[in-house]
Amino acid sequence: SAQRIALVPGDGIGPEVTAQAVKACDAAAQRFGLDLVWEDYELGADYWRITGQVVPPDVEQELAKADAILFGAVGDPSVPPGVLERGLVIHLRTAFDQYVNLRPVKLLPGVPSPIGGLRPEQCDLVILRENTEGAYVGAGGFIHRGSPDEIATQESVNTRKGVERLIRHGFRLALTRRKHVTLVHKANILTYAGDLWQRTFEEVAAEYPEIAVDYVHVDAMCLYLVTQPERFDVVVTDNLFGDIITDLGAAVQGGLGLAASGNLNPTGSAPSMFEPVHGSAPDIAGRGWANPAGSILSAALMLEHLGHPEAARSLEDGVKAVLPRLGAMRGPEMGMSTEDFGDAVAAAISED
Amino acid sequence: SAQRIALVPGDGIGPEVTAQAVKACDAAAQRFGLDLVWEDYELGADYWRITGQVVPPDVEQELAKADAILFGAVGDPSVPPGVLERGLVIHLRTAFDQYVNLRPVKLLPGVPSPIGGLRPEQCDLVILRENTEGAYVGAGGFIHRGSPDEIATQESVNTRKGVERLIRHGFRLALTRRKHVTLVHKANILTYAGDLWQRTFEEVAAEYPEIAVDYVHVDAMCLYLVTQPERFDVVVTDNLFGDIITDLGAAVQGGLGLAASGNLNPTGSAPSMFEPVHGSAPDIAGRGWANPAGSILSAALMLEHLGHPEAARSLEDGVKAVLPRLGAMRGPEMGMSTEDFGDAVAAAISED
Ligand SMILES: CC(C)[C@H](C(=O)O)[C@@H](O)C(=O)O
Ligand SMILES: CC(C)[C@H](C(=O)O)[C@@H](O)C(=O)O
Repeated sequence: SAQRIALVPGDGIGPEVTAQAVKACDAAAQRFGLDLVWEDYELGADYWRITGQVVPPDVEQELAKADAILFGAVGDPSVPPGVLERGLVIHLRTAFDQYVNLRPVKLLPGVPSPIGGLRPEQCDLVILRENTEGAYVGAGGFIHRGSPDEIATQESVNTRKGVERLIRHGFRLALTRRKHVTLVHKANILTYAGDLWQRTFEEVAAEYPEIAVDYVHVDAMCLYLVTQPERFDVVVTDNLFGDIITDLGAAVQGGLGLAASGNLNPTGSAPSMFEPVHGSAPDIAGRGWANPAGSILSAALMLEHLGHPEAARSLEDGVKAVLPRLGAMRGPEMGMSTEDFGDAVAAAISED
Repeated sequence: SAQRIALVPGDGIGPEVTAQAVKACDAAAQRFGLDLVWEDYELGADYWRITGQVVPPDVEQELAKADAILFGAVGDPSVPPGVLERGLVIHLRTAFDQYVNLRPVKLLPGVPSPIGGLRPEQCDLVILRENTEGAYVGAGGFIHRGSPDEIATQESVNTRKGVERLIRHGFRLALTRRKHVTLVHKANILTYAGDLWQRTFEEVAAEYPEIAVDYVHVDAMCLYLVTQPERFDVVVTDNLFGDIITDLGAAVQGGLGLAASGNLNPTGSAPSMFEPVHGSAPDIAGRGWANPAGSILSAALMLEHLGHPEAARSLEDGVKAVLPRLGAMRGPEMGMSTEDFGDAVAAAISED
């Protein structure tokens, strides 16, 4: 039966890249006999300017009924920074309880990494970022704001439930991979949050004697991601550390344009949302210079999540086939427009 | 007149590397006619095990009278993680109001960076990390600890005074460099702390019309540090973000073994403390495999701080002369022992 996918292209390069992801999904649907129905939602900067709302309640209710959400990017110079990011991306992650932010860091063959000599087999990890709490809850405030005595506080809130479900997802995933889970935190300094994360990690780990575990401080993690990414298989971490190390991971795997993510609600109580790690990049919007690989690979994660692993694989294979033809990973030097890239991937999917 | 330097070698490779830094300083003292007096403090793991104290009040009072502190590293598998780091390093940074943690990220000629093709002229920035507050204050706690309803909170506390003095130091430093200051934060999410940092940054920037400024989110910063380090001159940021991006910076400039830092109290109300960014590395301690460059370059920052720029330069030049002779930046492959490295640097300083 049909699966309904809410498409939220958003701003900047969002529409260009998601259009290629849709094309790739449709090619895979054709080939593997899937029934995907797309529903467009014009959220983002224009919508906010016209309506004064980021996601009105009725739209949110419709989105909630979708089987999945394919998201492009939001953000525009005309909108105060943070309004759309918090009101849309962060809001939906939380409202739809998408507590796992899954971000593969995988160097694909033929893609140049900034790390000299890095080979694809050395860089294949998955970072699971807690996606609903931590420093992202917006807790904090000011005392004496604007005075010389001002104090601004920002609080990270971590619940046992939130930490445990993310960590459990990591262990389940590791069973299907190289059976190694690393916890990343800064437990020697963030002694309260770090203690909860470490204690929960150890308790869950005890249930999985077949899985190897270790702990790495977030500062050391940044170093290792650059010098020894082969150390990692599945990495679990909190919302803010996950934000930071996945951008670094994107750099290591060849650039933000290639990085995919899934905001997963593993319980199915609300839809999961799939989005490239990159932003709306207004500077290059509309020129055909955006790399749609991040969006297509996010759509692959979506197809996997929707129960179509072969179709998912075909998108990944399509991207892998086309990427080595690019002159650069982004911009006019790419040597192939955003749309041509999408056409080539769709053709590869259909031909196979 | 004599300047008294408190030497705290600490644990693991701390004593080996600081011994080379002392040797280099003594060579420079000889050549430039400085009068440096060293006072040894045997703090660290052994001291803690024997006395049960990390820094007893009377030792702290003696340290407070020094003109500077040269610090090695602390931490040992026999001591619960965090005890020495917090009780010694973090405690002294705060107690001596060393509010600027100055960490140059400089690729020296002849040093291989993991970033393919990176040239020294593309990587010469200074990160100033706020060193007394933020997430390092230890604020937070537990609710229902150990139960399924547990909540662990961790609070970042930022004061106008603390933020402003760090930022001001950045602008003063930028005047002596390429006149560019970048603020790194996550203001779109950490809206309270980020607002204080951004507002203070803009107010101080207004006093320096000749200095170019920009703002970069911490996640993007990690990406740029790898792909475009030439974007940066002086970077100002908070304690936790500074911890993270300076380890990444150390990786980019060729490894933790080469990274230097100064914990500065610019008012002189208490001594400043100079330490390599690396830790005690118990796994390679005592084998002559540690690279003392980080410690010697930290001593160079110390000599600069003590008013001896030429002597400081001679240490940096000495390190620059010897580094290209190494087979690797660390370990047995270095091809030169820790001590031989120190001797070679001292010889270079004396000969010049
Ligand atoms: C846009 C921003 C709010 C978001 C985040 O911080 O999570 C982005 O950086 C990401 O990683 O998805
Ligand atoms: C040892 C640790 C407490 C310390 C810190 O977090 O500041 C270290 O990582 C550093 O960067 O100096």
